[in-house]
Amino acid sequence: MGKLLIVGSLAFDAIESPFGKTDKILGGAATFIGLAASKFDVDAAIVSVVGDDFPQKYFDLLTSRNIDLSGVEVVKGGKTFFWSGKYHNDMNTRDTLITELNTLADFNPIVPENYKDAAVVMLGNLHPSVQLSVINQMKKRPKLIILDTMNFWMDNTLDELLAVIKEIDVITINDEEARQLTGEYSLVKAAEKIHTMGPKYVVIKKGEHGALLFHDQHIFFAPALPLEEVFDPTGAGDTFAGGFAGYLAATENISFENMKNAVIHGSNLASFSVEKFGTERMQALDKTEVDSRLHQFKALTQFNIELQ
Amino acid sequence: MGKLLIVGSLAFDAIESPFGKTDKILGGAATFIGLAASKFDVDAAIVSVVGDDFPQKYFDLLTSRNIDLSGVEVVKGGKTFFWSGKYHNDMNTRDTLITELNTLADFNPIVPENYKDAAVVMLGNLHPSVQLSVINQMKKRPKLIILDTMNFWMDNTLDELLAVIKEIDVITINDEEARQLTGEYSLVKAAEKIHTMGPKYVVIKKGEHGALLFHDQHIFFAPALPLEEVFDPTGAGDTFAGGFAGYLAATENISFENMKNAVIHGSNLASFSVEKFGTERMQALDKTEVDSRLHQFKALTQFNIELQ
Repeated sequence: MGKLLIVGSLAFDAIESPFGKTDKILGGAATFIGLAASKFDVDAAIVSVVGDDFPQKYFDLLTSRNIDLSGVEVVKGGKTFFWSGKYHNDMNTRDTLITELNTLADFNPIVPENYKDAAVVMLGNLHPSVQLSVINQMKKRPKLIILDTMNFWMDNTLDELLAVIKEIDVITINDEEARQLTGEYSLVKAAEKIHTMGPKYVVIKKGEHGALLFHDQHIFFAPALPLEEVFDPTGAGDTFAGGFAGYLAATENISFENMKNAVIHGSNLASFSVEKFGTERMQALDKTEVDSRLHQFKALTQFNIELQ
Repeated sequence: MGKLLIVGSLAFDAIESPFGKTDKILGGAATFIGLAASKFDVDAAIVSVVGDDFPQKYFDLLTSRNIDLSGVEVVKGGKTFFWSGKYHNDMNTRDTLITELNTLADFNPIVPENYKDAAVVMLGNLHPSVQLSVINQMKKRPKLIILDTMNFWMDNTLDELLAVIKEIDVITINDEEARQLTGEYSLVKAAEKIHTMGPKYVVIKKGEHGALLFHDQHIFFAPALPLEEVFDPTGAGDTFAGGFAGYLAATENISFENMKNAVIHGSNLASFSVEKFGTERMQALDKTEVDSRLHQFKALTQFNIELQ
C-alpha cells in the first residue's frame, strides 16, 4: 500500500448540460482524483484549501474513503472555489459561466509531515507555482510525480509551467493543449517535444476518443468505453488521473508495462464518472461494477493475431 | 483462398494537401480496396467501368496483384470518373473541388460468371442501385456482403440506400454518417438502430480516432496507429475496407472473433495508405513492413490485467 499525495482543488460546481442542471454540488480536481484513487489499496492524502462554507458532509465523504485531509486548510470566513459551466449538445465542448477562485487565489499548500515521503505525487490542475511548492516540500524525490495542467496556465504563466514540467515524470494533458504547448499538430511529434521538456511519460487525453501514453518510442492507447449516454464530462480527466495515480501507488510498480494497466484503470473509472452529474456515480460505484467493466475493456481491445 | 468480389470506382484523383498537390493520379474505391485485399491470399475480381482514357499501366498494376479485371467495362470514347479535393490543415476535413462522374453516371455492373459464387462481396461506395444490382446477380447468397456508403446517398437516394442496407451483413460508415443515418449522436445508439435496418455488423470509422465494430451487444475497437505525419487521407477508408474484406475472404471465417482481427488488419493497412499521395505507399508496401506494423498494433493496444 503506497502513499499517494494529491494536490488540487476542492470545489463547488454548478453544471448545465442537455440533460439538466445542478445546484452547487461537490467538485474539484482533488475530489475526483481522490475518489478514483481510493478504489485502490492506497494511503492517500489531499492537500487543498476551502472556505468555511465547505460542508462537513463532503469532508466526511472523503474521510470515509480513507483519504487523509490533514493537509486541507479551512479559511475562516473564506469561500470555497466555485466553477460553473454549460455543456453544448455534443458534450465535448463547454462554456465556463463562472469562475470564483475565492480561497484558492492565495493558496499556500502545506504538505503534512507524514506524506513528505509519498511514493507517488499527483499534482492536479492548479497554478504551476503551487505545484512546484509541493514538489519542493518533499523530503525525498518521490518515485513518480504526475502533473495535470490546462491551457489557462499556458496562456498566463508559461514560464512557471515550464519550470514545473521540468521536474516531473508524467504529464497528463489533452490533445489541444499538447498542440498548444508544442506547436505540433501531430500528437506523436507533440509528445516527442514534451519529452524534451522533462517528462519521460506523456499522457494525451482525447476525451471520448481515448488516451495515449507515450514513453520514448513506445506508444500505448486506451479507448474510452463507448457509452449509450455521456451525461456530464466534468471531472472525467481528473478521474482518469486519479485511477492512473492510484493504481500506480497501490502496485508500487512504475514500469511502462504497469503504466499501460494504469491507463486502462483510469479510463475504466472515467467511463463511470461521466454517467451522472458530478461525483454521484463515483460515490456509489462498487468493486463488482468496476471489475465487470474491466472485462468490457478487455473485450473491446484485445485480439488474437498470431505474429512471428 | 476465398473468392472476393469488389464493386467500386476506378478513377483519376487530383489532390491538394498542405504537403503539396498531384496531377491526375490513380484513385477510386475499387483501386484502394483491391490493393489492400491483395495483401491476403484471395482470388479477387473488380467490377467497374472506365473510359478509354484509363491507362494500360493501371490495368497492369492491378493485374500484377492477381486481381481479375474481366468485370471492368471500358467505354469507347468515354472518360473515367474524376475527383479532385483539397485537404485543410487538420487533414480531417476536405473540400471537393471537382466531381466528374463521366462513365460512372451510367454504370451497369456485370458480374463475371465465375465470380457469381464469391464468398465475400465488397460493395464500394457507389449508387445504391448499382450495389443492389450486384447482389441480385449472385448465384447464391454470399457468406458475407459488406457495404460502404457515404452521406451523398443519404441525402439523395435514401430509399434505395435503405433497400440495399437491408440485404447486407456489414456496413462500414463514418461517425458523422452514422449519426445522419440514425439521428442518434451516441455511436452506441446509432449502431443499435443500424442493426435494426439489417446489418448484423456495423463498422463505424472515425478516421484518426480509429474504428468501432458493433455486433449485438459486443463492441470491438481498433485505434488508428498514431503517425508522425498524415500525408493524404484519400482512400484510407477504402483501404481499411479492403483489408477487412480481404482478410475475411482469405481466412473464410466470418466469426466475430475473426472479424476483430479483420478490423486490425484493415486499420494496419490504412495506416500505410495515408503516408503518401494516392496509392503510392500501397503499391510499394511489402509483407515485412505489414508484419512489423502489426507488432506495433499489438504493443499499442494489448495489456495484461488479470481478471477473475
